[in-house]
This record gives sequence, structure tokens and C-alpha cells, in this order.
Amino acid sequence: MEVIRGVRVLQARADAERAAGRRVALVPTMGALHAGHLSLVELARQRADRVWLSIFVNPAQFDDPLDLARYPRVMDDDLEACRKAGVDLVFAPPAQEMYPEGADTCVEVTALAAPLCGGSRPGHFRGVTTVVAKLLSAARPQLAVFGEKDFQQLAVIRRMARDLLLDVEILGAPIVREPDGLALSSRNRNLDPEARKQARVLVAALDAAEALVAAGERDSGRLLARVREEIGQAPRALLDYAELRDPEDLGEAPARLQAPTLLALAVHMEPGPDGGERVRLIDNRVLRPG
Amino acid sequence: MEVIRGVRVLQARADAERAAGRRVALVPTMGALHAGHLSLVELARQRADRVWLSIFVNPAQFDDPLDLARYPRVMDDDLEACRKAGVDLVFAPPAQEMYPEGADTCVEVTALAAPLCGGSRPGHFRGVTTVVAKLLSAARPQLAVFGEKDFQQLAVIRRMARDLLLDVEILGAPIVREPDGLALSSRNRNLDPEARKQARVLVAALDAAEALVAAGERDSGRLLARVREEIGQAPRALLDYAELRDPEDLGEAPARLQAPTLLALAVHMEPGPDGGERVRLIDNRVLRPG
Repeated sequence: MEVIRGVRVLQARADAERAAGRRVALVPTMGALHAGHLSLVELARQRADRVWLSIFVNPAQFDDPLDLARYPRVMDDDLEACRKAGVDLVFAPPAQEMYPEGADTCVEVTALAAPLCGGSRPGHFRGVTTVVAKLLSAARPQLAVFGEKDFQQLAVIRRMARDLLLDVEILGAPIVREPDGLALSSRNRNLDPEARKQARVLVAALDAAEALVAAGERDSGRLLARVREEIGQAPRALLDYAELRDPEDLGEAPARLQAPTLLALAVHMEPGPDGGERVRLIDNRVLRPG
Repeated sequence: MEVIRGVRVLQARADAERAAGRRVALVPTMGALHAGHLSLVELARQRADRVWLSIFVNPAQFDDPLDLARYPRVMDDDLEACRKAGVDLVFAPPAQEMYPEGADTCVEVTALAAPLCGGSRPGHFRGVTTVVAKLLSAARPQLAVFGEKDFQQLAVIRRMARDLLLDVEILGAPIVREPDGLALSSRNRNLDPEARKQARVLVAALDAAEALVAAGERDSGRLLARVREEIGQAPRALLDYAELRDPEDLGEAPARLQAPTLLALAVHMEPGPDGGERVRLIDNRVLRPG
């Protein structure tokens, strides 16, 4: 497995792969790899001749400097996990490769990036689209794979790639969960044991809404009330948002659900009486009435 | 000479040229081609195996809908000029190819795009960088050539290409002038005869400033006063801006010139008593104190 730090070297590799007629899939990550990332690698392998994975903790997408400082960084473990998973190439650039001195350019998706996490985390998606545009320029893959846990991120990146005429397929991969249902996230490492236990409330809320829809409930207000009630069961969970949205354009869902509808949740797990960190978790599910 | 209207077809051509080891130079234009554009084609030919020219009047970079409506469109003449100049391929996309329905993404350079034309034409450079990013995605050239008449545009595009890690060289080409010194511009076609005559005042102002510098003048205030005085000779010329700037980062020049300094001018040629159109013209020169 090759580890590359420089953009020019990577671009030369990309040209060589294209010239040889090989299809490259890129899995962009911020490291702290878990089984969710490895499922993206697996999907990439099924769809391409080469799997490249990037590890870059992108400062521009953090609205909160503390969150950036606490974001887990475990490069040696990550490289070992990539080797075991059969990744062909890891791109792990230093910050100055991605943001050269005097960097002054951003890539921004407007409407799709405004609600949900875009509302809670100002500038977050601008940072995401800017760095993903750069990673796609650097690696020039035919395919890039992102997890559906970050549902809005996937929609925003898809829109960006389409709008900028990037010649790349953007593929979403299903959420991978712990045995108790918690969606895998690098941030889960920052949960203390009690917060980890209570974090199950996110998937419990999604399950509850799904069960109501299966039982015939179509009223969005009652569905969201049920979600809030469920989140309220966990004293350490502070709801950031719970919203029903059109899965395509992320527009607000109608008062009565008719078509498949995204239920998106974000929760802050608050520090306990003995301290601990505030950790923001997200999860989502597409509800399918009738 | 091939004429292509679709992005996917162009991308397939680009892949084929790369696979064959041929170097492509792109000359992005908004059409209404003149000898200035043809000098870009000539420069492109010297530096690449294939010369591609794009013709797209980009709505997103017009801050003034009237200016967009009046922008000259002469596709048949343009194609004939390209044939004669030995252009290999013309990319002339309809608007929906460049801005698919629901397009929601922009590429923006911040600091470099703020002064000069960025101040006079809000959103102009965001439109330019967005469309140039798309054209570079669509054509994937090794080289793209832009005229130095749009000095700030060239600087902004260079910064964007560097920041987004685009694997393309951005080349500037010297200003081409009419026999009386007026810089060639597609907008010159919209000047009535009297405005055309008075438009010579732009190059006269640049000449006057250059002569003062050659004579030892270093005071930026006196240089700009001389420029304004010269512009004032033309009753139909309304000064938009006259500024001295660092040619690299477009920062404000010091009160006393020491290093090479950009003198950038923008003027509105006003309608005459018998009507006519308001036409905005720009010009520039790098002044080189001893």
C-alpha cells in the first residue's frame, strides 16, 4: 500500500491509472477509521480497479475550534486498517498541500446546504465542498464514495459534482451501526460510557417514527413530537434538530407525508456531572409511507 | 474543425487527447472574436498540440442585465474566424449544459476579487470563476490562455486554479491594440463613432502615467491626478476607477512607487446627445519605476 502526501505526486498517479484504463474509486475520510469507513472501501472495491482513501482532518469544515482540536487523530491505526482492508493507496496530505499559503477560494452549494446541519454549523458545508472539490482535483477518481449517515453532505456533494461538471460518480453507502443500533461515527470515541449508553436514543427515535409510519401515521407534527419525546428519555441528549425533509432537494416535507421522506436528527450529548465532553451526533432514516 | 455542444462529448474528447499523449490548450471566450482572441489562439498553438476555443456568453458574470442583452453575439462569424485561425475544436454549449436545472454551486475567490472590477461589478468574478471552473472540468486542458486586458480576471483565475489544485497552467497573453492604441474588446463594437474616438483617452492616460514615471515621478497621488486629468479630456468618458495596485496580490500600492505597479482603469463611455449606448471599457499597464 502506497502512502502519498503531495498533490502533484497523486495527480501523476491518477494520470497513470487513467492511461492504463484502470478505474479509481476514492473514499474521502477524516481518519479515525471505523467499520463504516471500511464498508465504503468494500463498496469501492466492488466498483473499481483501485481503491484510494484520503485522510485529512479539514479545518475549514469545523465551525467550532474545540471540536477540531478534539477530533480523533490516529494515523498509525488508520494506515494499519487500510492495509488490512486492501486499500491500494492512502493520500494523507499536510494542511499546506490542501490550503497553500494565501488560499482564497471556496466552493459553495447554496440552497441544499442551508437547512439542517447547514443551519447549526455555519460555514460547515462550504468547508466540505471546498475540500472535496480539491480532493477530486487531486485524485481525479471515476468514483467517490460517501456514507449516508451524512445524508445532507452526500446530497450537497452530489449537487456540487453535477454543477461543476466534474466527471465523477458520487456513490452513497448505507449506514453501518453498532449492535445496539448507534450509527458508527469517529466522534463516538469521544463519548464517555454513560453518554455512549444514552446515545442509543437517536436510533430509538428513528425506530419509533418508522413504527408509527408503518402503523399508518402520516401527520408530520405527530411524528416529530414522538421523536422529541424519545430523545427526551435521555437526560444527557440535547436536541439540535429533528426535521422531515424531501430526500432529493431537502425542502420541507408537507404536513401529511405521502412520498418517501427524510427524518434527520442531530443531538448534542452533554457532559455528565463528572465532566466529559460535549459530542454532536447525527443520524437519519428515509421514512416510506404506504 | 469540430464544433461540440455537449459537456459529456467534450470530456470524452479530452480523455482521448490525454490518452494519446497530446497537450490541449483551451482559450475560453464569450465570442465576438477579435484580433486579441486570435493572439490567444496563436499563443496556445505555440504551447500545445491542440487548440480548443470555447464560446459561451456567461449570464452569471453580468451584473447588469442590459449589458448581457447587448453583449454582441455573432456565432457564424466566430466559427469562420476560428476555422481561419486553425482552431481544432470549438466548444459552444447551450446555457443548460453549463448551468443544469437547479444549479446551486458557485466558486469564489475572495480577497483578490474584491477591489477594482470586483467593487464596481458585484458578483462578476464569482460568475467568472464559477464558469471557468466548469469549462476547465469540461475540457480538462493542460493549458488555458487568458488576455492581460482583464488583468484582475487573470489573477483571480490563476489563484482559483492554484487553490483548487487544478492540474492546469494558466497563461496570460499581452494586450492587443487598435492602431490608435485602444485595447481590443468585444464591447468596442457597441461604441458609436464619437465614443470610439474619445475611447482613446484610456490608453492616453496610461501613456501619460508611464511617461511621468519614466521622467522620475514616484508619487502615486500625482500619477493618479494626471490619469484623471487625461480622462477628463473626453467629455463622454466617465471614470469608474483609476487605481495603483500590487500586480501580484492586487493590494493597494504605497504612496511612493518603488516596485512594478499595476495601473488599472475602468471608464464608462456615456451615450451622446443623439443617443447611443453606455459602454464600459477597461485597460491597464504595469508601471516600472527605474
